[in-house]
Amino acid sequence: MAIKRNKISVVGSGFTGATTALFIAQKELGDVVLVDIPQMENPTKGKALDMLEASPVQGFDAKITGTSNYEDTADSDVVIITAGIARKPGMSRDDLVQTNQKVMKAVTKEIVKYSPNCIIIVLTNPVDAMTYTVFQESGFPKNRVIGQSGVLDTARFRTFIAQELNLSVKDITGFVLGGHGDDMVPLVRYSYAGGIPLETLISKDRLESIVERTRKGGGEIVNLLGNGSAYYAPAAALVEMTEAILKDQRRILPTIAYLEGEYGYSGIYLGVPTIIGGAGIEKVLQLELADEEKAALDRSVESVKNVMAVLA
Amino acid sequence: MAIKRNKISVVGSGFTGATTALFIAQKELGDVVLVDIPQMENPTKGKALDMLEASPVQGFDAKITGTSNYEDTADSDVVIITAGIARKPGMSRDDLVQTNQKVMKAVTKEIVKYSPNCIIIVLTNPVDAMTYTVFQESGFPKNRVIGQSGVLDTARFRTFIAQELNLSVKDITGFVLGGHGDDMVPLVRYSYAGGIPLETLISKDRLESIVERTRKGGGEIVNLLGNGSAYYAPAAALVEMTEAILKDQRRILPTIAYLEGEYGYSGIYLGVPTIIGGAGIEKVLQLELADEEKAALDRSVESVKNVMAVLA
Amino acid sequence: MAIKRNKISVVGSGFTGATTALFIAQKELGDVVLVDIPQMENPTKGKALDMLEASPVQGFDAKITGTSNYEDTADSDVVIITAGIARKPGMSRDDLVQTNQKVMKAVTKEIVKYSPNCIIIVLTNPVDAMTYTVFQESGFPKNRVIGQSGVLDTARFRTFIAQELNLSVKDITGFVLGGHGDDMVPLVRYSYAGGIPLETLISKDRLESIVERTRKGGGEIVNLLGNGSAYYAPAAALVEMTEAILKDQRRILPTIAYLEGEYGYSGIYLGVPTIIGGAGIEKVLQLELADEEKAALDRSVESVKNVMAVLA
Amino acid sequence: MAIKRNKISVVGSGFTGATTALFIAQKELGDVVLVDIPQMENPTKGKALDMLEASPVQGFDAKITGTSNYEDTADSDVVIITAGIARKPGMSRDDLVQTNQKVMKAVTKEIVKYSPNCIIIVLTNPVDAMTYTVFQESGFPKNRVIGQSGVLDTARFRTFIAQELNLSVKDITGFVLGGHGDDMVPLVRYSYAGGIPLETLISKDRLESIVERTRKGGGEIVNLLGNGSAYYAPAAALVEMTEAILKDQRRILPTIAYLEGEYGYSGIYLGVPTIIGGAGIEKVLQLELADEEKAALDRSVESVKNVMAVLA
Repeated sequence: MAIKRNKISVVGSGFTGATTALFIAQKELGDVVLVDIPQMENPTKGKALDMLEASPVQGFDAKITGTSNYEDTADSDVVIITAGIARKPGMSRDDLVQTNQKVMKAVTKEIVKYSPNCIIIVLTNPVDAMTYTVFQESGFPKNRVIGQSGVLDTARFRTFIAQELNLSVKDITGFVLGGHGDDMVPLVRYSYAGGIPLETLISKDRLESIVERTRKGGGEIVNLLGNGSAYYAPAAALVEMTEAILKDQRRILPTIAYLEGEYGYSGIYLGVPTIIGGAGIEKVLQLELADEEKAALDRSVESVKNVMAVLA
Repeated sequence: MAIKRNKISVVGSGFTGATTALFIAQKELGDVVLVDIPQMENPTKGKALDMLEASPVQGFDAKITGTSNYEDTADSDVVIITAGIARKPGMSRDDLVQTNQKVMKAVTKEIVKYSPNCIIIVLTNPVDAMTYTVFQESGFPKNRVIGQSGVLDTARFRTFIAQELNLSVKDITGFVLGGHGDDMVPLVRYSYAGGIPLETLISKDRLESIVERTRKGGGEIVNLLGNGSAYYAPAAALVEMTEAILKDQRRILPTIAYLEGEYGYSGIYLGVPTIIGGAGIEKVLQLELADEEKAALDRSVESVKNVMAVLA
Repeated sequence: MAIKRNKISVVGSGFTGATTALFIAQKELGDVVLVDIPQMENPTKGKALDMLEASPVQGFDAKITGTSNYEDTADSDVVIITAGIARKPGMSRDDLVQTNQKVMKAVTKEIVKYSPNCIIIVLTNPVDAMTYTVFQESGFPKNRVIGQSGVLDTARFRTFIAQELNLSVKDITGFVLGGHGDDMVPLVRYSYAGGIPLETLISKDRLESIVERTRKGGGEIVNLLGNGSAYYAPAAALVEMTEAILKDQRRILPTIAYLEGEYGYSGIYLGVPTIIGGAGIEKVLQLELADEEKAALDRSVESVKNVMAVLA
Repeated sequence: MAIKRNKISVVGSGFTGATTALFIAQKELGDVVLVDIPQMENPTKGKALDMLEASPVQGFDAKITGTSNYEDTADSDVVIITAGIARKPGMSRDDLVQTNQKVMKAVTKEIVKYSPNCIIIVLTNPVDAMTYTVFQESGFPKNRVIGQSGVLDTARFRTFIAQELNLSVKDITGFVLGGHGDDMVPLVRYSYAGGIPLETLISKDRLESIVERTRKGGGEIVNLLGNGSAYYAPAAALVEMTEAILKDQRRILPTIAYLEGEYGYSGIYLGVPTIIGGAGIEKVLQLELADEEKAALDRSVESVKNVMAVLA
């Protein structure tokens, strides 16, 4: 009847998965299992061991395991999916969707087999459709399958605003709805610096250009890196959601949630403000939207549906 | 007369340099400049921006800049050198030494030009000789040029001991002298679990095999990763030293220090227990060594001198 | 030319002063000197020592000194004033003001003598008038004399809102102007849960009652304790301001700032949104106020002026 | 099937109890219930509310409840007992023992009734006998009833050593056996600075005087405060033990454990090195003692037995 640590599994040991594992361990949220395909078993073990060797110095206490065997993920409280391929030059969007859909299905089967009570967080792109795939494949109730995009998008927005105003990021808040990246629907009127509406602090033109930079935020990093995509901020976003669940914090975070009538949509996963706590998504918060905001959200939904149409 | 943040520059934006920058920012030790060669400018900027975008989520407040222009490092309090090449298959040790020596000289020139009062920490291998090179090139007093190896080596040792005993890493301490890796001289009798000498808790055979695993700890990660070397634990080690300096903590940490008679050696940089604080290395601590420990240290010194003989 | 730690002095070693010292040390913001009158020297030393003895366990590294000798505060970067008496039954407000004014003058003389370049933060009540007294007595520029009230008032407001909505305090923001406590001018329309205006989440009646509870928040604690007043939340507020200064964070925090025309007032200290960083108060932020908000602020100013009229 | 937070109850809302609640909340170890007798209900509620109001500022997320109703402690994972009276001038030791024994019995009955599966940590003095009383009254297995003294005693010792050597407390370790305070048996040969035995760094005389100061460490604070006893360091010690349990850390900490033959004693609670984790005390570690250490421990046991003889 002893007290046991939480257990979090991270599927995919690329930069994002590994960084996610690191952040979880640093916060002592529980023990971490980093799992990847058999061909990646050794690098996965190498990253896990390297992190573990950082723990005496950084002063955190967590078991970190690298593996290709899903048995090691058994009884996880939270499972985070970062696996899948990134779109490469020349690859059609449909190829990307179908390849990652296969990955999601295979991975979900293993997750469900070993952790039937876990909460799943999905990062893999296109994230709305991939979260939907995991939801379908898992048979889990909707509150236990969640996609990540809004925490990352607002983090980028907040960073750019803090730079613009030369202020601490601690006091900047942002708000987005809808899909990830290009489909993002920023609600600038719900975004503040120290509680002061941004619209009163920054000119309309500058704000628009910052919103546009946020939309393209993932691409900006891809272009700079030249080879690969962002991982620090995505990992931070995943871990904030994980912490909210494991500590039952009931935080208001923008997540990708399954809608059943909210905002007038049903049967899709979409980025909306939610209350996230020990049960996963505990509530979708509904805001009144201005006409142009609703129109933008409609376009975002259209775009998500177009991707879903490609799902096998 | 306003209060200003500390400034830390990290030379080399590979995995170790980038992870070092991240850890510094997470701890809010100051603003961070990540600097690399012009060909790497964009990836360096990309990593810095990605980290910065993690800051609103993780709640830390630090400017993180990627650059190839050393002017941006001006007035750094601490500069960390992670630049240089790793030994590749077919490359002779002498080639490695001479290539990295050139890198150290070029980099040091820039550091000294823009931050004449900084403290420099060197990670580049072979680290004893490279620290010596930076010391010579910088013209800095010995307390302001420090090499890293012992914090990392003991972190690995502590990790393996914690696993062996199934105990928290928080209560395991370790102690090494001499060179990095193969040349490491572990003082097991100064290593403890909760203050209890390890020799009373673990059999001699097991301890020897753990010491041997520690010696080869860098190679273990290289072999697992298949492509590249450890970066999480090395970065953690660099940041612990940086924190000790910036917070003037006067910690006892094993570092690579310039010896002028201590332990009977002069004119070389060697891994020894030191007091590290606001002035850099504030003191070399001298222990009485048993005959076999002194003999092992002699061999380690010999090995360091062999590398130094290759320096141009 | 070694790096030195920051130094923070806390005047007054009562519960608030002591808790402030503890929070500063826990955050490793620098070394702390807790100073009180000679009659309190031993208890002051006792609290400082007890805290210091907590440091190996909590893992923080700070010198904490208890003293009655202002020489020990020399060269402080920040000095926090918590000294003064609380209003007792039967004591007139004017007596309170004049007694604490004397304390402020005496204390400021000592602070200025030993730390001519410090930034001073004042907590002593009635805080607007006491901050003005310290400003006058010190001869410091206005940016380097700051009063605390708004961080505490909004903390209470945020707590009550989080309870009302059963949500994490992390996502609740609040906004106040004007004097402390009864004179507080809450700007509910600038207060949010996860960026969503509170007015859309909580009924007008409930919001008004929460605002009223916030106004009386200090008294609520006084009544419950039976003997003494709040110290945990006030100390937290003081340390947040101290951290913003010492880390030059440029945060937007509501502080008591000297006005020279802002909001139409001059020559008084008043609670307003400010940018606070390495130079202390770096800017007063001006918001457009609705007529009723401006009227409430006028009343608050009137109230502050009435207290100032009592100053000797 | 949602994830739930840990719950920790702290019995006794005096300075130590309140500070313990604060430290638990700051570390987000779970929700905290602070419970005291009905006459203290309001001050208990006041302290809990004040702490809670600090949480938005300090950024921690925990429910903190003040109460006099043990129903509110139901289903606690850990319960910490700080209740009881301190010895007053003129009070015989036997009176103290018997009064606190009654408190322990009454409190334990309530704890067991509402949290039959919890782990209990006892701080009340004389702590060895009081822990024994709680063990007897609770009917709990020995691993789930633990006394605190060694973490505090070593914290004081480490503080004094760090001051003596002008070094960071982070690198100082200490080791004690036996009873609290005067009966403490310090094992100086198991105490180190950066792994280096203290005996090689500090003269025998100075070490003896530091040991003696540690023995009297509680009295030193009592004398300084003039009114009351230490609470910061005791609370830190309680919370370190609580964290080790709740995070199942398997730390080596000196605790007061029930002995059944270890060190040659049976049927008493005594300060010994233990492994503490999710099951409470998971193991008593046995060290080989030198003759004079064993003799000192015998005297400590005698002293504990003398107190136990007074138990009703």
